[in-house]
Amino acid sequence: MLRYVRVKEDRKASNLVGKRKETDHPILHWSSTMSRPGNRRPEYHKINRDLFVLTYGALVAQLCKDYEKDEDVNNYLDKMGYGIGIRLVEDFLARSYVKKCHSYSEIADLIAQVAFKMYLGITPSVTRNESSRNEFSLILDKNPLVEFVEELPAGRSSLCYCNLLCGVIRGALEMIHLTADVKFLQDRLKGDKVTEIRITFLKKLEDKKYRRKK
Amino acid sequence: MLRYVRVKEDRKASNLVGKRKETDHPILHWSSTMSRPGNRRPEYHKINRDLFVLTYGALVAQLCKDYEKDEDVNNYLDKMGYGIGIRLVEDFLARSYVKKCHSYSEIADLIAQVAFKMYLGITPSVTRNESSRNEFSLILDKNPLVEFVEELPAGRSSLCYCNLLCGVIRGALEMIHLTADVKFLQDRLKGDKVTEIRITFLKKLEDKKYRRKK
Repeated sequence: MLRYVRVKEDRKASNLVGKRKETDHPILHWSSTMSRPGNRRPEYHKINRDLFVLTYGALVAQLCKDYEKDEDVNNYLDKMGYGIGIRLVEDFLARSYVKKCHSYSEIADLIAQVAFKMYLGITPSVTRNESSRNEFSLILDKNPLVEFVEELPAGRSSLCYCNLLCGVIRGALEMIHLTADVKFLQDRLKGDKVTEIRITFLKKLEDKKYRRKK
Repeated sequence: MLRYVRVKEDRKASNLVGKRKETDHPILHWSSTMSRPGNRRPEYHKINRDLFVLTYGALVAQLCKDYEKDEDVNNYLDKMGYGIGIRLVEDFLARSYVKKCHSYSEIADLIAQVAFKMYLGITPSVTRNESSRNEFSLILDKNPLVEFVEELPAGRSSLCYCNLLCGVIRGALEMIHLTADVKFLQDRLKGDKVTEIRITFLKKLEDKKYRRKK
């Protein structure tokens, strides 16, 4: 993703975590002080999302032109999203004034209620898998990315049109040292009743170990 | 653009102009009553633009991968933008509550002050070419689309990184029956002092003919 484009050094998401000790748990770093250099809140420019939605459509169409197999398009979208996620996370933390998170559940809520709201203008609901404490689903009643799309193109029934989002979440989480598997379980574009993104955290959080010191 | 994606009928920009007589001048149709079906203002979802800016970067990178010549990438971006512009214009008219425009000058101001503000969060200044009444320049002091880009990639010195914007403007104008040539004259990414988009209207407006009847 963005192979040819150099990112300005001061915006590199990697700066956010560059000097952390590997043994520190990243969730403890989701504090406002760390993510706002000089205590300045970055400019927050709000725009109408339609240009983005249509540009995303152009990107998917281009990838469908480039890759014959849906699986390859899906993988490429995920890869591109990953690259975007690792760049986006620093500004997200700086702009969202998030507090420390102490559980996967809080992180899932944060993704749904703050990140989705900020970047897509929607707030998915979060459901928990009762049998597994590290699995969460984001349920999207509305999906703005498909607002201009009526149905998947012929012969593209396995296309995960919005797979970029999975990559973005995966990349952003990885930048705060959380490994996760992120994928679409259901998609209204494919005839499912809802659109569901499943996030499975792959490293278990040990609450006590990383509890804030008083 | 979006070859594989069918647009919902009720959102087709073509609906806006479909039943007009060819002899009607489109500018007279830039009224609020025409662009708001049922007098309902469409939902206006504001989002942070960074995800869009990075997704656009991914699109440009993909095209650079696909096409060896900068000229081909530029043309393709323009073509994609054109497809986006013809879809975007109806919602733009509905959301922006624009009044009737009576001159090219007013249209240029509208593009700069309303459209750029709505979709990119910036307001370029407009300069007029004194010797030609149908030429206008949009001067962008800041260009959010290149916010994450430090310089053009090696070997891509003729790339018009933001050429999609030219296509969007061209497509949107064409949907209201205005033919225009839209291109970058200067680009800070190429070392110019400012970024300048030149809009040249190719069909001359005859003010008297289309003056509103009292």
